[in-house]
Amino acid sequence: MIAAQFSRTGAPADVLEVVELPDPGPPDAGEVVVDLVAAPINPSDLYTIQGTYGIKPPLPAVPGFEGIGAVAAVGDGVTHLRAGDRVLLVTAPGTWRSRVRLKAAGLFALPPGDDLQLAMLGANPPTAILMLEQFVSLAAGDWVLQNAANSGVGAAVVAAARARGVRTVNVVRRDSAVDGVRALGGDVVLVDGPQLAERAQAAVREAGGDPARLRLALDAVGGKATGRLMRGLAHGGTVVNYGGLSGEAIELNPRDMIFLGTTVRGFWLVPWFRTAPREEQARVVGEAARLIATGALRTPVEATYPLSLAREACAHAAREGRSGKVLLVAG
Amino acid sequence: MIAAQFSRTGAPADVLEVVELPDPGPPDAGEVVVDLVAAPINPSDLYTIQGTYGIKPPLPAVPGFEGIGAVAAVGDGVTHLRAGDRVLLVTAPGTWRSRVRLKAAGLFALPPGDDLQLAMLGANPPTAILMLEQFVSLAAGDWVLQNAANSGVGAAVVAAARARGVRTVNVVRRDSAVDGVRALGGDVVLVDGPQLAERAQAAVREAGGDPARLRLALDAVGGKATGRLMRGLAHGGTVVNYGGLSGEAIELNPRDMIFLGTTVRGFWLVPWFRTAPREEQARVVGEAARLIATGALRTPVEATYPLSLAREACAHAAREGRSGKVLLVAG
Repeated sequence: MIAAQFSRTGAPADVLEVVELPDPGPPDAGEVVVDLVAAPINPSDLYTIQGTYGIKPPLPAVPGFEGIGAVAAVGDGVTHLRAGDRVLLVTAPGTWRSRVRLKAAGLFALPPGDDLQLAMLGANPPTAILMLEQFVSLAAGDWVLQNAANSGVGAAVVAAARARGVRTVNVVRRDSAVDGVRALGGDVVLVDGPQLAERAQAAVREAGGDPARLRLALDAVGGKATGRLMRGLAHGGTVVNYGGLSGEAIELNPRDMIFLGTTVRGFWLVPWFRTAPREEQARVVGEAARLIATGALRTPVEATYPLSLAREACAHAAREGRSGKVLLVAG
Repeated sequence: MIAAQFSRTGAPADVLEVVELPDPGPPDAGEVVVDLVAAPINPSDLYTIQGTYGIKPPLPAVPGFEGIGAVAAVGDGVTHLRAGDRVLLVTAPGTWRSRVRLKAAGLFALPPGDDLQLAMLGANPPTAILMLEQFVSLAAGDWVLQNAANSGVGAAVVAAARARGVRTVNVVRRDSAVDGVRALGGDVVLVDGPQLAERAQAAVREAGGDPARLRLALDAVGGKATGRLMRGLAHGGTVVNYGGLSGEAIELNPRDMIFLGTTVRGFWLVPWFRTAPREEQARVVGEAARLIATGALRTPVEATYPLSLAREACAHAAREGRSGKVLLVAG
């Protein structure tokens, strides 16, 4: 079996290598052996390899926070899984390996569906769902403002918002991304820049909405973009930051903070997976699976690479201006 | 009578003038006439004159958000006030006038005390008290981290925290300010700069405290200073910004926001005075008056100017490196 691995942190092109590891062997009682089907390359994976993420695994480490596998062999006493079933890879970080032996008790068979889409179930859709639920109590007819709307989380926000009757003002950084977000079901799509707040509020009004119902903004960009989102919100709104794609510090004018009565929060999925009750996790993952199964959420895919080309895949994933996600698949 | 007045917004040195206004005349039934005793010059006054504050009064306007006056004449039917009583000037903005006629019903006689200290009762102490109460539930033994600790609000935070058994880590921007904050009762005083977060946590430990109980930071500076405070807090802490003394945008690293689970909020006193129930306002103003009467809160005063020199007083108040507040007094 093979795995992508890094022994020191740094640019993936410098430190990531594909290595042969000993096969995990046949399953013991209560275990299954699972072969990799597909695993996406998310920004959090690249940050982990660079050593700049909130999780710093002991080295050498296998990256990968999510993905799905196919059950290859079933140990004694396992009755709820059979060969070929798709399961979430729950070994995060460390999903970028061709084969793994797992306790069967924590696994469940995913509903049938597109393998690549199911491989993206574990991180972005729960992030989107929880950001829509944890900070502001939203009702049908409310609006949400988000940037990086053409990202994986962005697509999931559009789908999860639509499922709640909540409409979205979507902000992207380049003209060429507008049509893609419209096709995903984004109600309003704007290109970031001057007067964003005024344009967002005007677009809500034009769409028959009320800018006073813009109370939640989701920011993955940082820099001055965070302040532009903030000024688009109604008084007392909440900005949730979950990324720093600009590579710049969040900039907020104290006057805006004080006079608009805004709250700014950070969101990180990892502690939720560690602390939320199992039923709550099942509810959120279940909603994500339904959004995918019904076609409500379809994350654009730009390329797939075999695991043996993980380094090249990371280089591709780090490029600006992609039209969709890069995933690793078996091979 | 005279008043300070501005007919267009701009630098106080350019736009503020002292003008003669018609005397308000004798009190009607239920009214009193009050003569100015003292009114502090706060940053919010300078911002209002510059046109950059959240309140933009119709022009020409008399500035001044707080101050006290002495009852000069009492109208028919007013029994709870007598000549010479000190009362809060409740005409904000507009306290910078030598005489005013007011409904007596909203006024009460202040406890005896130092006129200059009482004149600073209405804005900074309630700001400090409410910031300690509204965002994080604090108990004796908790710690609060604040910058601009040598400001008027900073002194009130130290006093109001001590009254709650809450200890303070106080940050100032220059060595020469350290002793003043120690004299006010600040438990720890640090000069802002590199490794502030580590120094703050180490100082709490040295003082026998637990850095996990640093859950609230109060920021009046903005710029990179906000992020330095944020990193000093325990996981899940709250930063409350109430000013931008650096003149720079708040800068926050998205990684800190996300991985530390921080909340950043703005605080502004004005809406609270508009919306809080009268009993709640009386409770907070009463606590402020007690802190002053007992000597627990004594805000340093650098200079007093007669109202006729309001322009010169504002120039003084705008200077960097003051050792205390500048106030206007009768004359």
